[in-house]
Amino acid sequence: MATIEKIEAAAKRLHGKARVTPLLSSPDLDAIAGRRVLVKAECLQHTGSFKFRGGWAALSALGFHQRKRGVIAYSSGNHAQGVAAAAKAHNTPAVIVMPADAPKLKIDNTRALGAEVVLYDRVGGESREEVGAALAEERGLTLVTPYENPEVVAGQGSVGLEIARQAAELGITQADVAICCGGGGLAAGTALALEKYAPHMRVRPVEPQGFDDMARSLASGEIKSNPSQSGSICDAILTVEPGENTFAILSRLAGPGVVVTDAQAIHAMALAFLRLKIVLEPGGAVSLAAALFQQDAFDCDTVIAVATGGNVDPTVFQSALSQHPF
Amino acid sequence: MATIEKIEAAAKRLHGKARVTPLLSSPDLDAIAGRRVLVKAECLQHTGSFKFRGGWAALSALGFHQRKRGVIAYSSGNHAQGVAAAAKAHNTPAVIVMPADAPKLKIDNTRALGAEVVLYDRVGGESREEVGAALAEERGLTLVTPYENPEVVAGQGSVGLEIARQAAELGITQADVAICCGGGGLAAGTALALEKYAPHMRVRPVEPQGFDDMARSLASGEIKSNPSQSGSICDAILTVEPGENTFAILSRLAGPGVVVTDAQAIHAMALAFLRLKIVLEPGGAVSLAAALFQQDAFDCDTVIAVATGGNVDPTVFQSALSQHPF
Repeated sequence: MATIEKIEAAAKRLHGKARVTPLLSSPDLDAIAGRRVLVKAECLQHTGSFKFRGGWAALSALGFHQRKRGVIAYSSGNHAQGVAAAAKAHNTPAVIVMPADAPKLKIDNTRALGAEVVLYDRVGGESREEVGAALAEERGLTLVTPYENPEVVAGQGSVGLEIARQAAELGITQADVAICCGGGGLAAGTALALEKYAPHMRVRPVEPQGFDDMARSLASGEIKSNPSQSGSICDAILTVEPGENTFAILSRLAGPGVVVTDAQAIHAMALAFLRLKIVLEPGGAVSLAAALFQQDAFDCDTVIAVATGGNVDPTVFQSALSQHPF
Repeated sequence: MATIEKIEAAAKRLHGKARVTPLLSSPDLDAIAGRRVLVKAECLQHTGSFKFRGGWAALSALGFHQRKRGVIAYSSGNHAQGVAAAAKAHNTPAVIVMPADAPKLKIDNTRALGAEVVLYDRVGGESREEVGAALAEERGLTLVTPYENPEVVAGQGSVGLEIARQAAELGITQADVAICCGGGGLAAGTALALEKYAPHMRVRPVEPQGFDDMARSLASGEIKSNPSQSGSICDAILTVEPGENTFAILSRLAGPGVVVTDAQAIHAMALAFLRLKIVLEPGGAVSLAAALFQQDAFDCDTVIAVATGGNVDPTVFQSALSQHPF
């Protein structure tokens, strides 16, 4: 399982490799939320999402021979790009198993990073875990899971280290930290980092309506699944259920989950365009949507929203802007 | 006139007030440009453009009584917002003279920052300088000019200090620094900063076709005007002619000007969306357009493009994405 020591070690390996992304803000967003909102812009990370951190942390933790044989990952697209980019930089072959209905931009980018992309039928019920495990066995590849691998979670935890430091520079030590949540790797890693470096901040996982497995799992104290794997525009964070390890960490450290609608995520994308000048994908905007439109869910004077990714097809983005003329 | 000492002093006053914006990059952009491209994302600055730096530097340099009486500025929109935001933070009344055909977003934002907006007819030939001077006299306001005020230029020069430091962290000490150029305040301030802190970097002002007054002035050794004040989509950088002081600085320190088409600026906006996840306005994208599409204009292995602003109306942005499906 990921630990704070693993996170600190991963942060050292990431130094100079991952970008230190800025904490952005806008008085207009503060006015909407009725409190201070800081946005950790991980869409500006290499490959357009925080997943580069976990990919790099995992690849850089492998031994020489393992790295030489290659890695395999399954992903709706952001973990795919993160692992593919890290593998390319480490001169490691990468196979990525992606759902056939993933955004075209994500599939194209993953291929452009030199990875071999294998598509599977998510909607029809094929299991990416089974497809991935079979290929790993067949070719001797190391499986880099998106949120169960402790090194991946440790890499994502570097976001928490940066939040603690950057917020302290602004004089902020107390905050709700809203995090877009699929399997929970970023939320868990960040929670561990904050436990040590910003103990008055608390992670709040945010999910889209109908895919709130983490919120229901945290509320009930046991892992709950989603009835469906598609049907939300937030493709990046549609997982079947929380990871066992991430759930264990978040049960101990996170506050209750927060749920937003797809429409709120789209509205948050348009506002991030207008007020922050950043590009968010729907699944990367649910944290900001929660800060803006689920005000009662939070206690602190400040919400720090981790905007996790920006890999959105232009047509989806244009549609978001059309729905919210300013 | 602005000096390196004024820039260093302004940078101290800006510390903790202006954002240190990131240097972004993408292997896809490098491939298009045929060299390394680093993008200084000043669209992420407060108020969505670098102009906040100059506004803050000028306001913070005023004496108590001058500040209390208020300031006036004329601007197509970004200097307006920069001065208005800085004035608000200093509790100073601000009057902003803006062209009636400025983007709606910029006019709205300036009003939202508490400034009184006075519109004038740019296309019909009204002079903003005359409108501004008359109001300044009438109300006892201090005029904060957009690129002749030495404190404003000093504030913009803090971009150059950051570029020198951030590039050195990446091991880069030699580069062409492409800068979107209207009156030349940012280019001049940056050139002065680089002269001391990165002497192997050279500023290259970039302008839209038909509005290349700085390029022609630099080539001929004397100030040349543009025949028109409208007719390009790059509203932020359509000035009549270079400032006297900025021209003097750039004559000494800058390389030849670079000219791009509106179509190239729009293409650069779409690529910045896709590859960097940032929002650029047309006038803020000409530097990146030059790096990508005017390759023969540059000598160095690296071009650092200052992406100066992101205050673009959503319809213009949507149109840019429509013209460049990936």
